[in-house]
Amino acid sequence: MQPVAIIGIGQAPVGEHWTRSLQELAAEAVLAARTSAGQPAIDALYVGNMLSGALQQQRNLGAVVADAVGLRGVEALHVEAACASGAAALRQAYLGVASGAHKVAVALGVEKMTDATSDVVAGHLASAADAGHESIHGASFVALNALLQQRYCQTYGVEQAAFAAFACNAHANAAHNPNACFRQPITREQWRQAPQLATPIGLLDACSMADGAAAVVLCPLDQARQWTQQPIVIAGSAVATDSVALHDRKDLLWLAAVEQSAQKAYAQAGCTPADVDFAELHDAFGIMTALSLEANGFAPRGQATALAADGTFLPAGKLPISTQGGLKARGHPVG
Amino acid sequence: MQPVAIIGIGQAPVGEHWTRSLQELAAEAVLAARTSAGQPAIDALYVGNMLSGALQQQRNLGAVVADAVGLRGVEALHVEAACASGAAALRQAYLGVASGAHKVAVALGVEKMTDATSDVVAGHLASAADAGHESIHGASFVALNALLQQRYCQTYGVEQAAFAAFACNAHANAAHNPNACFRQPITREQWRQAPQLATPIGLLDACSMADGAAAVVLCPLDQARQWTQQPIVIAGSAVATDSVALHDRKDLLWLAAVEQSAQKAYAQAGCTPADVDFAELHDAFGIMTALSLEANGFAPRGQATALAADGTFLPAGKLPISTQGGLKARGHPVG
Repeated sequence: MQPVAIIGIGQAPVGEHWTRSLQELAAEAVLAARTSAGQPAIDALYVGNMLSGALQQQRNLGAVVADAVGLRGVEALHVEAACASGAAALRQAYLGVASGAHKVAVALGVEKMTDATSDVVAGHLASAADAGHESIHGASFVALNALLQQRYCQTYGVEQAAFAAFACNAHANAAHNPNACFRQPITREQWRQAPQLATPIGLLDACSMADGAAAVVLCPLDQARQWTQQPIVIAGSAVATDSVALHDRKDLLWLAAVEQSAQKAYAQAGCTPADVDFAELHDAFGIMTALSLEANGFAPRGQATALAADGTFLPAGKLPISTQGGLKARGHPVG
Repeated sequence: MQPVAIIGIGQAPVGEHWTRSLQELAAEAVLAARTSAGQPAIDALYVGNMLSGALQQQRNLGAVVADAVGLRGVEALHVEAACASGAAALRQAYLGVASGAHKVAVALGVEKMTDATSDVVAGHLASAADAGHESIHGASFVALNALLQQRYCQTYGVEQAAFAAFACNAHANAAHNPNACFRQPITREQWRQAPQLATPIGLLDACSMADGAAAVVLCPLDQARQWTQQPIVIAGSAVATDSVALHDRKDLLWLAAVEQSAQKAYAQAGCTPADVDFAELHDAFGIMTALSLEANGFAPRGQATALAADGTFLPAGKLPISTQGGLKARGHPVG
């Protein structure tokens, strides 16, 4: 495999874009990324998206988006892995460039969720869970995360209020991100008083549905400096899966797929969790942030909230996280 | 890129499997493919599927199917490219192995379409067309193909009846395929008398909705003979796209993406159309078979039906096609 670098990035602001189509959001992100990379010729596009079939009645997004963003004719593909769809697009673009098949590839994540009411969207989001054992019984993603959070607090003797630290950090960071959905800081008191969605998860614990798009441009590392003075080297890349149904997991409080993929990526990069300067995790809910920190090796089991209380994950801490505002405050256009 | 070979194949019969889940069909195909490859350890799974989100309320099929087929933990991903979803899964498995990231990868196509009534499924299938310009006006895939066929006949002075040759060949071939959906040969008279779906396309011109799954196992060519005496070398692999909306194409009767990808694949393989011994094309409708033959270089423009009348595409002809029964008679579980 040849080493790969990111040479351009672009993003559409995250929010409620009722007057703009999915294709327009995609085009804003891809054109910005291409401009930031110095306008290289692009020969492949990977589109991460979860719900356009349900919400825009549009599948076949590889070809549809390629055409819309000025790339008619290129190899293009829609990939879907629920909340990991954008990361999956990056993974496939990476493999395509690493293989030598693509000279320059774009990975795009795009989702337009506000075209339908939130109950309808929540129903479609539940299709990422196990249809036969979870969503068929009405379990939404908020509900499943609420169960995990209750279990976490019971098992480790943690107070529910300890999770406020993740949401407050996310909102404080979003205030500095012009592309973020919610740019107002929140207080612990506001967090405590927010309406409950699925106890113990309240409104200020949960990521929001939103519209948005983000794209990166990749090329072989040995060609990256033709395009940019600051290529971002992909030092490690790995994917793992687990049982989707929670009842089938050996340990409800351990994200085995996160551990497995992180260990592979650390090995490829020749580093350990202690070498990592900052991290962006799946932080759609505080409990998922905590479990991700622990499975990635950034916190001992059951200690993520204690480290959060000590300021470890703030911008000035040892390991800043959710630096763009996280899925909580930056917003979570799923793909 | 390192050369890649197919070392195992497996398939579930195509039909109406009302008592079997999508996961069961997937498992039958993957386990058969793995057995046919001599039980190698598998480290990646690519799942081609179009409609499970709509018809089984199940997305995130990479992880879901990996677990169901005994591959919990492996890298897994759902890819979607409408009718090309299965081919897209093969393409991604190929790139993953060619890059060196995967030692052994499985590409799976799976679809379960008979859980809903055909009008509902047809509506979801239309999401592969342009939602804003085609399907929103009620254009189904049968209708769009019917328009193309009318244009073809008018432009080239071909009789509609000339398309019977493709369907009759497909059905005759399906009679020999135990996994095919429709194993009865049909006559030209039956074809002529079949009810019209969207004039000039009749019931015996159109592929059927069906349930099914098929899988292949890939590994680097230099390791293939450890697993099988008859590895299938992938001599060329390429993808291209076009405008999805028909009105945006420069030439309604020319599949530019097919020509572009075929030319790349021929160049990689060091061959020309004349070197090809048999072909499997997108043959969901006779008109698509004709246009695919022409864009692939297997027939001059406007001559595909004339060559079909001469027996060129029969099993004993110069270029057999639809040898498994084609999407028409083998059945067309889209993914």
